[in-house]
Amino acid sequence: MSAEPAETEGAFAHRAEVVARLRALLPPDQVLTDAPTLAEYAHDDAEWAPFETPIAVVLAEHERDVVAVVRLAAASGVHVVPRGAGTGLSGGANAVANSIVLSLERMTRIVEIDAAERYAVAEAGVINDTLRAAVAEHGLWYPPDPASYRISTIGGNAATNAGGICCVKYGVTRDYVLGLRVVLADGEIVDLGRRTAKGVTGYDLTGLMVGSEGTLGVITRVTVKLLPLAGREERAIVGAFGSLRAAGDAVAAIGASGIVPAALEILDRTCIEAVDAWQALGLPHGVDTLLLAKVDEVGALGERHAASVASLMSAAGALGVEQAFEADEVDRLFLARRLAYPALERLGPVLTEDICVPRGAVPEMLTRIQAAAAEHDVVIANIAHAGDGNLHPLIIAPEGDEAAKGRAKLAFDRIVDECRELGGTVTGEHGVGLLKIPGAELELGPRVIAMHAAVKQALDPHGTLNPGKAFPG
Amino acid sequence: MSAEPAETEGAFAHRAEVVARLRALLPPDQVLTDAPTLAEYAHDDAEWAPFETPIAVVLAEHERDVVAVVRLAAASGVHVVPRGAGTGLSGGANAVANSIVLSLERMTRIVEIDAAERYAVAEAGVINDTLRAAVAEHGLWYPPDPASYRISTIGGNAATNAGGICCVKYGVTRDYVLGLRVVLADGEIVDLGRRTAKGVTGYDLTGLMVGSEGTLGVITRVTVKLLPLAGREERAIVGAFGSLRAAGDAVAAIGASGIVPAALEILDRTCIEAVDAWQALGLPHGVDTLLLAKVDEVGALGERHAASVASLMSAAGALGVEQAFEADEVDRLFLARRLAYPALERLGPVLTEDICVPRGAVPEMLTRIQAAAAEHDVVIANIAHAGDGNLHPLIIAPEGDEAAKGRAKLAFDRIVDECRELGGTVTGEHGVGLLKIPGAELELGPRVIAMHAAVKQALDPHGTLNPGKAFPG
Repeated sequence: MSAEPAETEGAFAHRAEVVARLRALLPPDQVLTDAPTLAEYAHDDAEWAPFETPIAVVLAEHERDVVAVVRLAAASGVHVVPRGAGTGLSGGANAVANSIVLSLERMTRIVEIDAAERYAVAEAGVINDTLRAAVAEHGLWYPPDPASYRISTIGGNAATNAGGICCVKYGVTRDYVLGLRVVLADGEIVDLGRRTAKGVTGYDLTGLMVGSEGTLGVITRVTVKLLPLAGREERAIVGAFGSLRAAGDAVAAIGASGIVPAALEILDRTCIEAVDAWQALGLPHGVDTLLLAKVDEVGALGERHAASVASLMSAAGALGVEQAFEADEVDRLFLARRLAYPALERLGPVLTEDICVPRGAVPEMLTRIQAAAAEHDVVIANIAHAGDGNLHPLIIAPEGDEAAKGRAKLAFDRIVDECRELGGTVTGEHGVGLLKIPGAELELGPRVIAMHAAVKQALDPHGTLNPGKAFPG
Repeated sequence: MSAEPAETEGAFAHRAEVVARLRALLPPDQVLTDAPTLAEYAHDDAEWAPFETPIAVVLAEHERDVVAVVRLAAASGVHVVPRGAGTGLSGGANAVANSIVLSLERMTRIVEIDAAERYAVAEAGVINDTLRAAVAEHGLWYPPDPASYRISTIGGNAATNAGGICCVKYGVTRDYVLGLRVVLADGEIVDLGRRTAKGVTGYDLTGLMVGSEGTLGVITRVTVKLLPLAGREERAIVGAFGSLRAAGDAVAAIGASGIVPAALEILDRTCIEAVDAWQALGLPHGVDTLLLAKVDEVGALGERHAASVASLMSAAGALGVEQAFEADEVDRLFLARRLAYPALERLGPVLTEDICVPRGAVPEMLTRIQAAAAEHDVVIANIAHAGDGNLHPLIIAPEGDEAAKGRAKLAFDRIVDECRELGGTVTGEHGVGLLKIPGAELELGPRVIAMHAAVKQALDPHGTLNPGKAFPG
């Protein structure tokens, strides 16, 4: 545990000492302590979760910078909060007391792309979309596509085991991470995992690091498996529904049909209206819910699957179904999905839920979310990776309305309870961070939490790295 | 660490005491101590690895039996060596000194198959093929197919992260394990993981348990993800080659083509002759190497891929290429692959290698294996999951020829060294067990080994579970 300074003068001296040591190690433009920067880096996109002002923000440019900061922190009894682009939605990168925020955003080198072996090695700060574009030039595809893929980093994606839209068919970040370079809690560097297609030498410490939210090590380099870019033909099928429940029924029917769509997303009326008010996309008026599907099988099979999805939507009561086969038309139909989150953020601070229920429970869960919204008198918009059962009810409170914020928090907890009652998990893809600590406590139970604590103690005995995150302490 | 009895009389009394306690806990037919049973359960299929005679063999029938044995062992300073069907090839289930072998083979209940959510829950002793058949009745598919799938258990598959033939396209056991029930080192039961499609609550302890060879807990129940059975059309393409190297060239060319085959296996001349001598399958005479491929895309795309694979084989110098589209013809072409290992075991004790190199290094590695065979004057047959770069050179020593056994061991070590030189890993799918401890020591390095030891210490502080396996101590 850290040597927490007891009183203000001591705390001030401690902070000044830590900053002085950082400045002795790193160039001035990599150690930032001005108030706006500290405020900007004090939290990720989960402003509802608690955060503290960090002692300093360090912008690492090399692995040796990461090593230097972790060593200094370990020696000074200071915590390190690693951070990619800060797009997290659970507070995993929120600064804790007595901490240095260590940003990897400047470590942006793509180290290697091996087209024949189908892997790439990238530094932690490489943007997901940059990596995607770089490997595409070699005819390869990096599937994981969190909604933040244009701005989030591969290191942050790995640290949170990020999901995305295509994971209903192609899996999540962990499924693509072959190996990691990690700076451990004492500043030592290890290479975990492999580059070969298979390998079972020892425990899966790579998989353990993925999703551990910087609590077991700082990821500086990621080796990802790639798929061939060819061999897919995207077809979009979009259904307009009169109710969230009807769209949910279509999701359950598609899930039970044996077709595995490459995307299956729900946008509800609040989302549709927010996007249309912002960008005037000409989305259908009077529609309550859009269900956006993609299939990507090639040729006649893809045509059959698209037709089946369309008729399953109709059978579930779609008011209209649109299909698109041209790339730009497919993108146009999915644009509303991409714009939904920023469009909603314009309406006020968004408290993002991230529950995952069995696919068949999607209609029931959507109904219960609506009930929670009514009961607690809050606006809840729904974006959902519905094909996975991964729902993102977005609870919106008007800026500055503290009463609404309180009600939003109640609705948030109620939704978590309902999700667990339906056999779900409290976080599908955003991670525990700080926001889901109470839910994780219920879900994991005391003994599994003790296993987490034992693993944390084994790999970070002094609690240097991002304490209080990822599992209930 | 265990209280190892110092001398014979004490050891005898200790064993008798442990057996008496076991008999007090369990019915007579579940606690076996007769010499033939102890001999049979003293090791898995890796007879070359060291093993001891266990104190007793316990055949658990219920989770409570597993709990009782682990508690008794922990209290008595005895080790527990968990075991499925004993088909392992690295000695992971070999009995250690002062141990009880705890077999899960009688825990054969399929607890649940949820067709809509596409998962199944099975007790550890369910045979892979039994689970496969059971889920197929629901239109579902459990892909992982180790060569032992007709006799190995799902619990053993999970404990070793078993691979197989289709993993070149569909991944290994870990990719399908959603959750586990595990008896921990103190006898407490935990449920890890989830049943939902996605979930990131806490560390991936499920993935950590998978492949940990019973050193962190005893897996009693496995929840696996399933795929739809429909949507695949298998086409087999088999090329006959004049040399191992030419077949390796075809593997590298197929790998670089962007086609992901559903199987890509090599059988060399020694295998072909052994199978033909045993079963007279009418395999092509005078052929040095067979390359067996499957593609499973539907319709025209599948036809195109099959044609491409065939012409890549021809371009690499295949003497002949045969294709099959009917299920029984496909099975016939692959039958030689299924029979190869048992056919070779008829020639003498087999020391099974399990290296994995980059796909592009397959031709070079095959050449180096032949050189190692020549240098150490041993017979080496080659079976290879070539599409993954996962090679199984099988080193055969005539029964009772100790000199040949010694030379085989030298060739084994030489092959491991060559594999590492080519950027490979010392075990692709069989696990470290005991046989790959020296190779793992080189591959992992001291600090990553220390991480393993710390995790082991965290979850099994008294070293009760399968000590000395999975990583270098």
